[in-house]
Amino acid sequence: MASIAILGYGVVGTGTAELINKNKERFKKITGEELKLSNILVRNIEKHKQKKNSKILTDNFEHILKSPVDIIVEVMGGINPAYKYVKKALASKKHVVTANKDLMAEHGKELLDIAHENGVTLNFEASVGGGIPILKPLMECLTGNEIVSIKAILNGTTNFILSKMYSENMSYEDALKIAQDLGFAEANPDSDVLGYDAARKLSILSTIAYDKKVNWKDIHIEGITNIDADDFKYAKANGYNIKLLAISRKEENGIFASVQPVIVDKNSELSKIENELNAIVIKGDAVGDVVFSGKGAGMFPTASAVFGDIADIIQNRNKRSIQFNSENASIQTLYNYKSNWLIRIKTADKINAMCNLTGNFKNCYIFKNELNPKDEVVAIIKEETENDLNCKLQELKASSHTEYIKKFLHIK
Amino acid sequence: MASIAILGYGVVGTGTAELINKNKERFKKITGEELKLSNILVRNIEKHKQKKNSKILTDNFEHILKSPVDIIVEVMGGINPAYKYVKKALASKKHVVTANKDLMAEHGKELLDIAHENGVTLNFEASVGGGIPILKPLMECLTGNEIVSIKAILNGTTNFILSKMYSENMSYEDALKIAQDLGFAEANPDSDVLGYDAARKLSILSTIAYDKKVNWKDIHIEGITNIDADDFKYAKANGYNIKLLAISRKEENGIFASVQPVIVDKNSELSKIENELNAIVIKGDAVGDVVFSGKGAGMFPTASAVFGDIADIIQNRNKRSIQFNSENASIQTLYNYKSNWLIRIKTADKINAMCNLTGNFKNCYIFKNELNPKDEVVAIIKEETENDLNCKLQELKASSHTEYIKKFLHIK
Repeated sequence: MASIAILGYGVVGTGTAELINKNKERFKKITGEELKLSNILVRNIEKHKQKKNSKILTDNFEHILKSPVDIIVEVMGGINPAYKYVKKALASKKHVVTANKDLMAEHGKELLDIAHENGVTLNFEASVGGGIPILKPLMECLTGNEIVSIKAILNGTTNFILSKMYSENMSYEDALKIAQDLGFAEANPDSDVLGYDAARKLSILSTIAYDKKVNWKDIHIEGITNIDADDFKYAKANGYNIKLLAISRKEENGIFASVQPVIVDKNSELSKIENELNAIVIKGDAVGDVVFSGKGAGMFPTASAVFGDIADIIQNRNKRSIQFNSENASIQTLYNYKSNWLIRIKTADKINAMCNLTGNFKNCYIFKNELNPKDEVVAIIKEETENDLNCKLQELKASSHTEYIKKFLHIK
Repeated sequence: MASIAILGYGVVGTGTAELINKNKERFKKITGEELKLSNILVRNIEKHKQKKNSKILTDNFEHILKSPVDIIVEVMGGINPAYKYVKKALASKKHVVTANKDLMAEHGKELLDIAHENGVTLNFEASVGGGIPILKPLMECLTGNEIVSIKAILNGTTNFILSKMYSENMSYEDALKIAQDLGFAEANPDSDVLGYDAARKLSILSTIAYDKKVNWKDIHIEGITNIDADDFKYAKANGYNIKLLAISRKEENGIFASVQPVIVDKNSELSKIENELNAIVIKGDAVGDVVFSGKGAGMFPTASAVFGDIADIIQNRNKRSIQFNSENASIQTLYNYKSNWLIRIKTADKINAMCNLTGNFKNCYIFKNELNPKDEVVAIIKEETENDLNCKLQELKASSHTEYIKKFLHIK
C-alpha cells in the first residue's frame, strides 16, 4: 500500500485528491498496489470543512511528517512554506511530488541533492507544461540525444492574451481583462505577463536538457506588456503571428536563453498553439525536432501529471531522481544566429531613419506608408545577428529624433 | 556494466550501435553505468566486414544467448526469425529492446508474458512513432487518465505521398515514385500504402491505451491507393486536406478502431504534419488532448528511441514491463458519431443522384457543376453517423446508374 499526503487543497490539490480516489481501483488492478489518501494539509480546516475528504484534513505538517505516509505531494505553490516542507519531507525519507515551478527553479538543485542523500525520489513533472508529459520524456526517452535547442510556449495566460490580440484585433488591456474574467489570468498578473513564469519553466527544462545550471534570473526576460495592436497589424501584414517564446540553445561558449515576444510564421506549428495551450519543441541531435503540446495548466491536466509522478514512485521504488548540475551555465542573452527581424522606429525624422536603414542593412524591406503613421518607420530586416543589428541601429537609437526602437526576432 | 548485443545491422542497427558508442562517456557521467556493445548478429559476416564494429560481428545467435550479455536489441524487423530470437532471449532472462511493430502487434501479449515470467523487461518504444516518445508517456505519465481516444498519423511513407499530392497537385503514382526515389517508400510499398503498418501501430497503442487486446486484423483498414488528384481537388475546394489517420476511440460497447483516409481542416494541427513526420493526439479524461509529433522513422530517430529503452532498463533494473490484456476488445468498424462527410458519386444519372441526396439528407451541400465532370456528383453531408449515411446511400449504391460511391470522414 502507498500512503499519500497532499500539502495544499486549492485547485490542483482538489484535482489530485479526486484523481487518486478515482484511480484507486484501476491502479490496483494494473499494478497490484493500493493507493491511500491519508492527509491533506490546509492552513484553515474550517474553510475546507464542506469539501470532500474533510475527515483527513490537518493543519499540522509535523503530524504528517511523523505519520507512516510514503509520498508527500506539494501543491501549495510559492516558495514559502513549500520550500521548508519539501526539505523536511525529503530529509525524513518521504518521496515528494511537486507541481511547483517557482520552488524547482529556485531550489531544485538543493532539493534533488537532499532527495539523493536520503534515497528518496523528488518528481516534478507538473512544474513545466502542466499536463503535457515533457520532463520524463526529456530525461528518459531522449537520453540518447545531445539536446540542441528548446523553443516553447510555456505560459498559458500570455498565450491566451496574445491569441485574443491576434484573432480579434484586441488591445492588450482588453485581452488581459477577458483573461482575468475567464480565470486564465490572476488579479495580479505580473509573474505571467512579465515573463517570469515562463523563464522559471525554461530554466528547469534547460538545466535538465543541457546538464548545466541555468539560473532563471540570468535569462533575458521580456514580457508582453509592451505589445500593442499595431505590433500585430505589422506582423500580420507580413504573414506573421506574435508569440511569447521561451528559447534556449546550446552554443559554443554557453547557452543562449531568453523569454521574449517573437514573430512566427502564421502557418507554423507554434502559431497554431492557441489560447491557454502550451507547446514545447525539443531538438535532439539524433531525433531531430520533437513537439509536445497540450494543456499547460488547470485542475485536472496538472493533477494528471502529479498522478503520473506518484505512480512512477510507486512502481519504481528504487529509482534515483535526476540531479541538477551545480556548474552554472554561461548564459548568452543575444540571439547571435543570422535571423530576420521586424523593426518599429518611432521618430520625428522618417526620411533619416529610412536612409539609415537602407544604408546599414543589405536586406531591408521598409513598409509602405499607408500602413504606418507619419512618425513611424516599420521594416523587416533579414539575415542579421542580434549583435550586428544592435550595432547598426546604434546611431539611430542615439538620434534625438528617435523616440524608441522596438524589435521582434523571427523564429522558424 | 551493461553489456548489449544487437540483432540486425541494417539502418536501425547501425544507428543504435553508433548512439551506444557516442553516448558511452556521457551516460557513465550521468548514471555511473558503463555501456558495452558486445555483439552484433548478422546473417552474413562478410557483407558487413567493412563497417564499424566488425570485430564484434557474429552469425551465431546461440553464442550471444550463452554470453553474459544483459540486453538484447532486436532491430531485424519482420516476424521471422525475430520472434524466435526474442522469445529465446527473454526465456534466457535477457532484457529485450525491440523496434519491431510487426512482432509486437502480432505476438506482443505472449512476449510480454514471457518477459514477466522471467523477471526481465521488454521495451518497444521505437515500434510506434519512431523517435517520438509516445509509449512511455502514455503508459507512465498519463496513467491517471482513462484514455478516451487516439488519432494519429503513424506512417511516414503515406503521409509523404499525401503531402506531395496536396501541395503539388501530384497524382498518386508520381508521388509514390518520388517517395521511392527518396527512400521514403520501399520498392514494394504494400504494407505502407495499404494501411497495414499504421494498423499494427494503432493496435499496439490502443491495446495499451484501453487495456484490451486490439487485434490489428480486426481494425477497419483502408489504404491510400484509391486516392486520386480529384479527391484533393474537392477536399481543397472546401478548405480540407486528406490524411491517412489511425483512429481509435472508447465506446460503450467496445472500441472503434480504423485506419482510413479522412479529410481534416487545412489549418488543423494534423494537416500541418507534413511529409514523413508522424503525430499522435491522445485524449485523456483528465488531461484533455496531448499532441506528440516528430520523426516517425529513420536511422537516428529510431535509434534515439531504442537507446531510451536501453537506458530505461539499465536505470530501473527491477521494473516490470507492461502486460497486454488477453481479453479481446470488441472492435467497432463504423464511425458512429455525427460527423461530416465528403461524398463522390460516379453516376450516369446525376439528376437522380442529386435528388436522392437532397431528399435523404437534411444538411447536404452539392458542389457546383464547374468543379466536377458531368458523370459525378460531389457533396458535403453534415451531421450523419456512418451507419445512417450507409443506410441512406443504399438505394443510390444499388442503382444501376451508379458506378461507385467514395466517401471521406471529416475528423476535427
